[in-house]
Amino acid sequence: MRATLSAWLERPGIRNFVIGVIVFNAILLGLETYPAVMDRAGGLILFLDYLCLSIFVAEIGAKIIAYRMNFFRSGWNIFDFLVVGVALVPGGHSLSVLRALRVLRVLRVISVMPRLRRVVEGFISALPGMGSVFLLMALVFYIGSVMATKLYGADFPEWFGSLGRSAYSLFQIMTLESWSMGIVRPVMEVHPHAWMFFVPFILMTTFAVVNLLVGLIVNSMQDAHHEEDNAQTGAYRDEVLTRLEAIDRRLDGLGAPPAAKAPPTTSKFDAS
Amino acid sequence: MRATLSAWLERPGIRNFVIGVIVFNAILLGLETYPAVMDRAGGLILFLDYLCLSIFVAEIGAKIIAYRMNFFRSGWNIFDFLVVGVALVPGGHSLSVLRALRVLRVLRVISVMPRLRRVVEGFISALPGMGSVFLLMALVFYIGSVMATKLYGADFPEWFGSLGRSAYSLFQIMTLESWSMGIVRPVMEVHPHAWMFFVPFILMTTFAVVNLLVGLIVNSMQDAHHEEDNAQTGAYRDEVLTRLEAIDRRLDGLGAPPAAKAPPTTSKFDAS
Amino acid sequence: MRATLSAWLERPGIRNFVIGVIVFNAILLGLETYPAVMDRAGGLILFLDYLCLSIFVAEIGAKIIAYRMNFFRSGWNIFDFLVVGVALVPGGHSLSVLRALRVLRVLRVISVMPRLRRVVEGFISALPGMGSVFLLMALVFYIGSVMATKLYGADFPEWFGSLGRSAYSLFQIMTLESWSMGIVRPVMEVHPHAWMFFVPFILMTTFAVVNLLVGLIVNSMQDAHHEEDNAQTGAYRDEVLTRLEAIDRRLDGLGAPPAAKAPPTTSKFDAS
Amino acid sequence: MRATLSAWLERPGIRNFVIGVIVFNAILLGLETYPAVMDRAGGLILFLDYLCLSIFVAEIGAKIIAYRMNFFRSGWNIFDFLVVGVALVPGGHSLSVLRALRVLRVLRVISVMPRLRRVVEGFISALPGMGSVFLLMALVFYIGSVMATKLYGADFPEWFGSLGRSAYSLFQIMTLESWSMGIVRPVMEVHPHAWMFFVPFILMTTFAVVNLLVGLIVNSMQDAHHEEDNAQTGAYRDEVLTRLEAIDRRLDGLGAPPAAKAPPTTSKFDAS
Repeated sequence: MRATLSAWLERPGIRNFVIGVIVFNAILLGLETYPAVMDRAGGLILFLDYLCLSIFVAEIGAKIIAYRMNFFRSGWNIFDFLVVGVALVPGGHSLSVLRALRVLRVLRVISVMPRLRRVVEGFISALPGMGSVFLLMALVFYIGSVMATKLYGADFPEWFGSLGRSAYSLFQIMTLESWSMGIVRPVMEVHPHAWMFFVPFILMTTFAVVNLLVGLIVNSMQDAHHEEDNAQTGAYRDEVLTRLEAIDRRLDGLGAPPAAKAPPTTSKFDAS
Repeated sequence: MRATLSAWLERPGIRNFVIGVIVFNAILLGLETYPAVMDRAGGLILFLDYLCLSIFVAEIGAKIIAYRMNFFRSGWNIFDFLVVGVALVPGGHSLSVLRALRVLRVLRVISVMPRLRRVVEGFISALPGMGSVFLLMALVFYIGSVMATKLYGADFPEWFGSLGRSAYSLFQIMTLESWSMGIVRPVMEVHPHAWMFFVPFILMTTFAVVNLLVGLIVNSMQDAHHEEDNAQTGAYRDEVLTRLEAIDRRLDGLGAPPAAKAPPTTSKFDAS
Repeated sequence: MRATLSAWLERPGIRNFVIGVIVFNAILLGLETYPAVMDRAGGLILFLDYLCLSIFVAEIGAKIIAYRMNFFRSGWNIFDFLVVGVALVPGGHSLSVLRALRVLRVLRVISVMPRLRRVVEGFISALPGMGSVFLLMALVFYIGSVMATKLYGADFPEWFGSLGRSAYSLFQIMTLESWSMGIVRPVMEVHPHAWMFFVPFILMTTFAVVNLLVGLIVNSMQDAHHEEDNAQTGAYRDEVLTRLEAIDRRLDGLGAPPAAKAPPTTSKFDAS
Repeated sequence: MRATLSAWLERPGIRNFVIGVIVFNAILLGLETYPAVMDRAGGLILFLDYLCLSIFVAEIGAKIIAYRMNFFRSGWNIFDFLVVGVALVPGGHSLSVLRALRVLRVLRVISVMPRLRRVVEGFISALPGMGSVFLLMALVFYIGSVMATKLYGADFPEWFGSLGRSAYSLFQIMTLESWSMGIVRPVMEVHPHAWMFFVPFILMTTFAVVNLLVGLIVNSMQDAHHEEDNAQTGAYRDEVLTRLEAIDRRLDGLGAPPAAKAPPTTSKFDAS
């Protein structure tokens, strides 16, 4: 019975229906931001929103029944579970945040559409290769935050008053937003040598970001290069070697003596 | 007769004349922005502008006569039709906008010069490959706009008062323009945790933009790589295989027995 | 005698002496910006500056004598001639600008040091390949300036009052500097739909800049790829074909009949 | 005995212990920025900080004993020596700066973790290839600073009052931060043609930065291409040539006369 259920859940019709519900729900969630619309048809919109939510809950419940614990083996299923589940949390203290988080439900369209799923999986698969640079960036940010807090925290508490504020300000500086007119020039009026801290920080972080970018490009290029080029090259090389072997064996048939062992030569065409 | 007309329209002389009229018209449209010039020679300039427009209308009319409905099969022809046609729309209510749109006529220089045409076609051909990332960006922007409107719309109506305003503000934030000093720091004075929304938004959208860039580079590289390299490689490979085949067949002529069938080996030189 | 002079001018010792004079002159020109230094040793510094200038004039004069009109065939010589010559122009009306232009003399270090020369030549050689995109950018800027002047010139004369001001403002917007908080938001208070002009302008120009970048990368990659890889590949391919030909001819010697003409096959390994 | 010491120092257990101490020290240095924490447990934190410092001093001392002067042959050892040593400098005049510099000690985590070490070494190895462009940038900045000081120093002493201030302002302009609204528009109110200096400066420096980026990407691509691709290609080419040679020698065994010397052909498959 569970097999029937899982087969039914994977039918294209069902998937298209779910996509339709997500898009319809997205429009509802957008309409909720217009006070004029909510005044007139607020009850209807909220009812339809609950209906959409019920469909999602039913779908995910059916999937859990069908796949049991295997359901939670897929990252995308956990993602679906969380973005739908957040709407069921009773919103006591911070209602507006929870209501806003409900909009994340629209992200389900990614997990349902294979094309978008692949793009996101491509993004995520690029992350581990950048792990070392991320670790380095975190290190630079932590050290920079501690130093900025110690050096400028007393004079500019709003920007560098605590580790968190310094980290935020340094992130702003890394994005080059108002770094000079907004932050460093005022700081330099009190600490004239502040540029010795901030300019190297900018150079280091932007250089690291550029290297991340370069690494990403180089990795993508090589993957693309491989997939496409090498299958054909491999086939050609195999054919040449097979034919050379065949000619060799036919020379056996003509009674040619085996060739004198050639001396092992170092490759002339190797990467130098 | 239509064949004669279309042959006449495609003569280089005619094309160069049209380019000349476009450039002359561009200068006229530029002169129109100088009040001092318009005071002195406004009548002449407007007359010459109408003359240019008449030439364009005559040219496009002749083309429609020559090619009939095939005229509208080319995107560039439709483009010409629209940018010239906009000047003929009677400008009742919003005269200044229509007058400004008339300047788009200068863009005809792209459709007339093959070199510029190719560049624009190259730009446009790059778009479909980026479709999924664009869809993802649209999704992130829509969800971000709904969330920002719900969370900050009440306190900052100018920036996040409606879906449209939020989308515009988020676009500004994505371009990193005044994102912190102008928008997020003021918001954080009311909602201290606002950085938890905006910093991930910045990281996600800029990462997506970087990925678009990387994808573009990788695609261009591969296209370039292919066009240039492979024709030559293919010719060489064909020649090697042809010669090996010839040697094989000549060994037949020497009475060599066929080679024992080699076992099918898995490729040693395949992409691993 | 001219041959002797040109040989003497190209001796490494002379070149190093000229580099030394340029560096010394650069330091003098820097010192001239310190009022305290000029108060104390202004006379000496100006005298040494004239001395450096005299050496440059003598050097270029000697080169003109040695090479005659061939001197002006090299772009770098014309460059030297201009940056040194500017100091000899009598500065009547705009003295401060001419005095500032004298500093360009330091750029001679580029024309004298081959390493820097190559970098600049590399930059310049990249320009023609970007010609079409530049032309397109110029077109977009011209049309954008005319439209912005017509639409917003009356209300914001400081930013869009004339073609020149509009072009400058659009350049600022293209660099994303204060485009929203500084320009577009104020404009939108008068023209609420102004974003329909500015957001597409930003998307188009930044996309064009990205394409320029991509084109540059792809071109550089291919040049690098070629120079290095293909010489070796060509040598290998020639050797394989030579050997196959030799084997073929030796089979002639064994009295093997010529191979039956193989049917002309379409390439299996061609670029598809 | 020194061999025993150096073997002991390189044991993984010792390295992991040192990493642990660095991370613990990093947390301590972070806690020092919280006044509330320092009020309660300041004595304990400073004691633990001294303890960590003592461990570092002991470790580096042991390494100097073990490796003697070879210790200073490694750049990473000198790095460790300096970032730990800065804490031992008696902080008379500028205590706060020295206290802030003590945080650099956390950077030791880079020299201890091989993964991070490699990333930083990769960054540094990319620098020499960019030497010429850096030299050119320095030249452009020096000339730009002298010119800006001469032209605008008198009217805008805060931005262009001295060589140093001009260099800082030009760096800000290169990063495009507030270049127009913050700097160039105010300057243009006094010197209307100032854009003729600043716009080319922006174009030149950003173009140079883009070229640095392109150079980095191209270099990385080629390195990656080589390492991976060529070993395999070299092996294949060697095998083909070895087999062709063997067939040639076996034809000797069959008594085939040597092939008539083929005319030296120019490569058909060479890079053109």
